[in-house]
Amino acid sequence: MTDTGRVEAFSDGVFAIAITLLILEIKVPADLGGRSLWHALAQEWPSFAAYVVSFFNIGIMWINHHAMFRLIARVDRQLLFLNLSLLLVVAFVPFPTALMAAYLDENSPASHVAAAVFAGTSVLVAIAFTAMWRYVVRDGHLLRPGVDLIAARATVRRFGLGFFVYLATVGLAFISAPLTLAVLFLIAVYYAFDQLAVDTRQQRGSAA
Amino acid sequence: MTDTGRVEAFSDGVFAIAITLLILEIKVPADLGGRSLWHALAQEWPSFAAYVVSFFNIGIMWINHHAMFRLIARVDRQLLFLNLSLLLVVAFVPFPTALMAAYLDENSPASHVAAAVFAGTSVLVAIAFTAMWRYVVRDGHLLRPGVDLIAARATVRRFGLGFFVYLATVGLAFISAPLTLAVLFLIAVYYAFDQLAVDTRQQRGSAA
Amino acid sequence: MTDTGRVEAFSDGVFAIAITLLILEIKVPADLGGRSLWHALAQEWPSFAAYVVSFFNIGIMWINHHAMFRLIARVDRQLLFLNLSLLLVVAFVPFPTALMAAYLDENSPASHVAAAVFAGTSVLVAIAFTAMWRYVVRDGHLLRPGVDLIAARATVRRFGLGFFVYLATVGLAFISAPLTLAVLFLIAVYYAFDQLAVDTRQQRGSAA
Amino acid sequence: MTDTGRVEAFSDGVFAIAITLLILEIKVPADLGGRSLWHALAQEWPSFAAYVVSFFNIGIMWINHHAMFRLIARVDRQLLFLNLSLLLVVAFVPFPTALMAAYLDENSPASHVAAAVFAGTSVLVAIAFTAMWRYVVRDGHLLRPGVDLIAARATVRRFGLGFFVYLATVGLAFISAPLTLAVLFLIAVYYAFDQLAVDTRQQRGSAA
Repeated sequence: MTDTGRVEAFSDGVFAIAITLLILEIKVPADLGGRSLWHALAQEWPSFAAYVVSFFNIGIMWINHHAMFRLIARVDRQLLFLNLSLLLVVAFVPFPTALMAAYLDENSPASHVAAAVFAGTSVLVAIAFTAMWRYVVRDGHLLRPGVDLIAARATVRRFGLGFFVYLATVGLAFISAPLTLAVLFLIAVYYAFDQLAVDTRQQRGSAA
Repeated sequence: MTDTGRVEAFSDGVFAIAITLLILEIKVPADLGGRSLWHALAQEWPSFAAYVVSFFNIGIMWINHHAMFRLIARVDRQLLFLNLSLLLVVAFVPFPTALMAAYLDENSPASHVAAAVFAGTSVLVAIAFTAMWRYVVRDGHLLRPGVDLIAARATVRRFGLGFFVYLATVGLAFISAPLTLAVLFLIAVYYAFDQLAVDTRQQRGSAA
Repeated sequence: MTDTGRVEAFSDGVFAIAITLLILEIKVPADLGGRSLWHALAQEWPSFAAYVVSFFNIGIMWINHHAMFRLIARVDRQLLFLNLSLLLVVAFVPFPTALMAAYLDENSPASHVAAAVFAGTSVLVAIAFTAMWRYVVRDGHLLRPGVDLIAARATVRRFGLGFFVYLATVGLAFISAPLTLAVLFLIAVYYAFDQLAVDTRQQRGSAA
Repeated sequence: MTDTGRVEAFSDGVFAIAITLLILEIKVPADLGGRSLWHALAQEWPSFAAYVVSFFNIGIMWINHHAMFRLIARVDRQLLFLNLSLLLVVAFVPFPTALMAAYLDENSPASHVAAAVFAGTSVLVAIAFTAMWRYVVRDGHLLRPGVDLIAARATVRRFGLGFFVYLATVGLAFISAPLTLAVLFLIAVYYAFDQLAVDTRQQRGSAA
């Protein structure tokens, strides 16, 4: 197993655990108090919505991480540290998810704060990805042989774009928390398809 | 590691974590209130029953997933997204399990709702598996060379059958929650042996 | 990856998660009520003791599982089902651990029940291991070529011995819960060294 | 997969799970009681600080473990037991992290106790690493061929140094809990870069 192999396996573990821990934020209704269980579950819709959005969000991060490491041949100390910083944010996602679930339906100032923290976590993820990728493509000494350095550098701008998109959703959080959640879901689905297209292009570069 | 390898490793992680998190829904009796601890544990039988049924259920899903990926050579964007959707439902299983554990012995309308959600989750799993397998066998471009496309397509109908079987247990939930749990357990044990028989046949097709 | 490879990877995941989830049963003292935090932590000694014993217990199970699979070349449906049953018991261990932690220092009938459930879980593990290994060595069609079938069968008796040893600790539970915990710790340490000796002998048989 | 491979995979699993479970100690503010959610989150700063420090701490342990096993070719019973003892302490980290989060801002005797337990866990980790590495380099029979035994032995002293550094932070805990946390963070960042430098040197020795 190369160094990259063990870093990828460890990262995969963190991604898989973080994505599966999300379910712990959905609580079994403790006291029905005259409501039917259907009714009680329906009132928990923010928990279900936050679960789905965060699940796809972490899924997309995993796909991105995977696509990035397919172009990397070796890791050094700086990259290990940057990767650990990225995982710090990924493993953090269950907290804003639980926060969103708890405060989304309150229609109060707290719902805006929860949504801002939720969206802000995606901003941090974008920063961590950009920092990591920027380091890798700076002089390219860690890239696999045959990877097109110019094309690889161009994708940094794409990550930067993600940063501004997520920053806009932080602003949106102060207008409407449910809308923020819906937009973040659409972004995740969009990235699921688009980001991989980039990846395929990179692969072609790598195979060239 | 091929693409399939990392997708399988990530999926295995999610399956292993979801199946192990199930134990967190069994709570230590907090207040004995004059009962013996034996008595208190015996009253928790729905937790133990739900644990066993869900454990075998997720185990069977893992075996199916494994059998499916043995026939797949490559993954593309759509398949990654469909696989992520499947994992979303798999990772969700601990919630209906906890719900069932909490409301099974109430002998109340809530027990029917809990059982319906529990059985309904298996319907969602059947849909996710069918969608994924249907996509793979549509034109077969992702299958391993040598896999019998006609035989592979025939198995879609089997997954469809699972859908109707699980749908029937949702109906059963409104008659008796404990009976629903018992039937789901028997289905899981049945699938453990039968589904793999299909798989072996496919393997033979693959080796042809 | 061979079939055995994916079964081992999935099982390793369950072992690793179950052993790491044990920490969740140790609770942060919520209300000091005039005690110092040192004092409050000292009163939690059953939690710490149960954590250490269960950690080594699961560790030993993993080592045994590992040793067993080194002799197995292929898996079939029955073995998959038996392995899933074994994992069901392994993943269950955090519950009796939490039970022991909650009731050990009560010096009450409940402490005996908790200790009996804790020791009883090891009995179930011994049964699951025996059933699995007995199936493997019955006709030996799943064993690696070169494994000494006679020697392999002899180890079934060893697993049977484990069954009786653990059964005795269930009896001990009704005399003293702390003593039961101490004896189970010593057995785990003993097995850590001894069981592997057997394994090494088997390896020699396998290399013959 | 060699023996080392499965021990590494199991250990990686425990490291990845322990590092991801840390997030469970950050609790969603349950009762705002007139405060804004921003305010309530800001008051939880010890949880966030403890999360970050423990995350990097476990990350460094993983990097060290990885570096150590790159020099090891085979495992025997003693090493398995020592590795299990190390993992026992690694998997324990979420508890002192939660303790620190709960008592850090109390500015009370309890904050000193929490910080001492937090720092003391790092002392235990240093002891476990030293015991393991000392065993490996004693006669070197488990090392990869070509590893410089003299250089490898020299690193034991470095681990011993870590022991004294962490012991000093236990003393610091009785002066200031927040300062202890800050110093432990700096040590983790320092080790992230420095320890790997040692590793690279060892690698060169291994390649010689």
